[in-house]
Amino acid sequence: MDNYEFGKSITFQNLNPHIIKLEYAIRGSLFHRLMEIEKELKDGVQMPFTNLIKANIGDGQSIGQKPISFIRQVLACVSYPNLLKTEYFPQDVKERAADILNGCDGNSVGSYTTSLGIDAVRQSVATYIEKRDSCKADWNNICLTPGASAAIKSCLKLFINNTNGQKTGVMLPVPQYPLYSATLAEYGLTQVEYYLDESKNWALTLEELERSHKEASKSCKIRVLVVINPGNPTGQVLTRENIEDVIKFAYKHSLFIFADEVYQQNIYEGIFYSFKKVLSEQKAPLNQVELVSFMSMSKGYMGECGFRGGWLEIVNMDPEVLNNLYKSISARHCPNTLGQAVVYCVVRPPVEGEPSYKLYAKEKADLMKSFATRAKMVEKMFNDMEGVSCNVVQGALYAFPRIEIPPKAIEAAKNVGQKPDEFYVLRLLEETGICMVPGSGFGQVPGTYHIRTTILPQLDLLKEMVDMLKKFHKKFIEEYSSD
Amino acid sequence: MDNYEFGKSITFQNLNPHIIKLEYAIRGSLFHRLMEIEKELKDGVQMPFTNLIKANIGDGQSIGQKPISFIRQVLACVSYPNLLKTEYFPQDVKERAADILNGCDGNSVGSYTTSLGIDAVRQSVATYIEKRDSCKADWNNICLTPGASAAIKSCLKLFINNTNGQKTGVMLPVPQYPLYSATLAEYGLTQVEYYLDESKNWALTLEELERSHKEASKSCKIRVLVVINPGNPTGQVLTRENIEDVIKFAYKHSLFIFADEVYQQNIYEGIFYSFKKVLSEQKAPLNQVELVSFMSMSKGYMGECGFRGGWLEIVNMDPEVLNNLYKSISARHCPNTLGQAVVYCVVRPPVEGEPSYKLYAKEKADLMKSFATRAKMVEKMFNDMEGVSCNVVQGALYAFPRIEIPPKAIEAAKNVGQKPDEFYVLRLLEETGICMVPGSGFGQVPGTYHIRTTILPQLDLLKEMVDMLKKFHKKFIEEYSSD
Repeated sequence: MDNYEFGKSITFQNLNPHIIKLEYAIRGSLFHRLMEIEKELKDGVQMPFTNLIKANIGDGQSIGQKPISFIRQVLACVSYPNLLKTEYFPQDVKERAADILNGCDGNSVGSYTTSLGIDAVRQSVATYIEKRDSCKADWNNICLTPGASAAIKSCLKLFINNTNGQKTGVMLPVPQYPLYSATLAEYGLTQVEYYLDESKNWALTLEELERSHKEASKSCKIRVLVVINPGNPTGQVLTRENIEDVIKFAYKHSLFIFADEVYQQNIYEGIFYSFKKVLSEQKAPLNQVELVSFMSMSKGYMGECGFRGGWLEIVNMDPEVLNNLYKSISARHCPNTLGQAVVYCVVRPPVEGEPSYKLYAKEKADLMKSFATRAKMVEKMFNDMEGVSCNVVQGALYAFPRIEIPPKAIEAAKNVGQKPDEFYVLRLLEETGICMVPGSGFGQVPGTYHIRTTILPQLDLLKEMVDMLKKFHKKFIEEYSSD
Repeated sequence: MDNYEFGKSITFQNLNPHIIKLEYAIRGSLFHRLMEIEKELKDGVQMPFTNLIKANIGDGQSIGQKPISFIRQVLACVSYPNLLKTEYFPQDVKERAADILNGCDGNSVGSYTTSLGIDAVRQSVATYIEKRDSCKADWNNICLTPGASAAIKSCLKLFINNTNGQKTGVMLPVPQYPLYSATLAEYGLTQVEYYLDESKNWALTLEELERSHKEASKSCKIRVLVVINPGNPTGQVLTRENIEDVIKFAYKHSLFIFADEVYQQNIYEGIFYSFKKVLSEQKAPLNQVELVSFMSMSKGYMGECGFRGGWLEIVNMDPEVLNNLYKSISARHCPNTLGQAVVYCVVRPPVEGEPSYKLYAKEKADLMKSFATRAKMVEKMFNDMEGVSCNVVQGALYAFPRIEIPPKAIEAAKNVGQKPDEFYVLRLLEETGICMVPGSGFGQVPGTYHIRTTILPQLDLLKEMVDMLKKFHKKFIEEYSSD
């Protein structure tokens, strides 16, 4: 063994090349700098600010949003069922907890559930969807998932197929949520971009879909169309007509629609129509279009990011393909039970007459009102700034304003190897402690620059953020506009 | 559009072929039949039995195992922190809960954590490992995971690389836990099998490793060696010498060792040595071998399957590769926070002098004693049966006895399109309600037949199972041995 030269099994040279390509803006270089600063602040390093304002992640509870009491009380009870014997919690909390425990083998959330989730919870999701859409939902087509990201990956995975020698294309909006581009990179699927029209409040137009499809069809077989509604990072809410157009387009080109509807409860203007509802109301053969819709417990009014709960609903999928999807999901055992419990609470909230109803309704209404206020405030802040324009935040938790970056700043960014919008947000972070994400992480029309902010800082903090950002921006523009 | 013929975007014909190939025995056809029977029993259908005995899955709490009170009390407190203000829970429970909440942004388990898990929990895991192994552990090389399965998949994914035109091989024991074969199928990695020696209590021999490696090296580049210790489904515990041999073998062939050590706390005979410990105690250059070790909260004395908690520890991985692993993990946000909280409780259990210590120690000791009793009982049961032989269950939660299946039964199985051991366990299920998994799901020497049972039914139920299984087996053998 003495003459043997040891070599590592894995190095950058023979690592999965798709993993190398994968980029994930939300948790990218900016995020790492944020974590460093957080540590430095804790260690007492002097900074121009004493607190960070994390407007970079759609995670309300991380910056002061209170969880809904009802949900958390149910979770406490299923975790430690002895609490059911006490007088500490209201009766409806205990009943929901008992429902969940009854759905678990051995009456314990410590057991695996089936890989698709607890039957009773899936059935309740179906009932919830039926009420939402006024149309039938089959619980066998609904499966609980550990958040939406894992669910989206499970479904995109089905389309990896290079056996016919033609690459598989997936249509993504630009701007998009970077989980999609990251997953396509990982799976070797081809990203086919269609642009949302910023000048029309981030509209999704049929013309642009056709243009994009036609162009990309020369080099790949397009099989999937991703639509994010309400939009992330763009905050628009699609009209019913718009959704009908998309369905016709998908029908015409035999595309599977991935409807990312995780912000369906975050609506401040307009009305949310689910793709499922609009699809069901089409006449044959349009109603045969294949669809999967994704929902998450991380957003909405509950904002339970840490519990990793969600669901997907499948419509019109070939039954053999569905079996294979379910089979592939089963290798991971099951979504965590407490995430499933959150789902149950969301689809079976307290109703009028139940003891928890009043508090639940108040907490939810206050939160929704506050979201709407903050959405307006953020939009106004940006539109008040020189060289910045921001569309209406109709839904979701974000604004995605366009920022004119002076040529000198673009040059300065280039000199330090950064993209102009990355340069802007890094300066913003270093000088004010405000953390936002550069538009380049989501995609944007070349030559335009954006930043994404959440609307999640609590009202007082948001007011502070508005002042600081305005000052920073003014100074930044002045600095790079001087001769 | 009238003349247009609508085609589905995805059918069996253009579905990801790797997903089609994927098989997952634990949740396969037997599992589906089990679910049907469960439903039929509930609906009042007459069966030869009134209760199922689910000895098919390593999930103690699903069949009567009580969770550890301390763990569940902490989970209740982090879920609903108002409980911290009550007198209901002991002080050490509240302190652990406060530690976890302090590690969460916004002091809430509803926030995302970093994708690698809460720093304080990772640090505590490092301290736990240092105590376990009497050697240094770096928390930067430890990452929390939603169970071991997801972690194993994340790491295997790194080795997908067809750019050099040579397939990547992964050495798996036979028998093995089918997550591995399923994942290799999904990722298009080549399965290189080495047999455990049943005649030597499922020993892992150097000769067999070399034979397997030599043979398969003709057709692929082998880069990973998977070792499951304690063994699943085989229940053996590797000796220190054995582990040293494996390390030398890995060194010689530049293999990355995947040490599946999820049963490290389930030891009834022998001593558990972690690969990390033995590796650290080797001299250079042997101590440079690349290693990842996996741990799960689903097994051990806690058996918290439903919470999907676990960790992995990386040793000697190229730093650039580690960055890429961490990057690829980040696209899924974070392991669920309550799974992380379970990890914290397991690595920071109550210590002597703390108020929860006595109850915790008793619950744990009772359970470990009961596991040992049941392991012996299961082993004896099988060795008492005609044509059945079973190795000592030294660890883990399973026995994997070899069963002589009469030629006539093999013929009968063939006639109904089943494998002989599948035929046996399906008959067993239909006639007795006992559910075990056929050896063919794990792999076995061709021409031999096995079944895997857990040792998890509670003592009274296990006694019942022993009687029923013995009777069934006698009848089965008689039926197929008669002229």
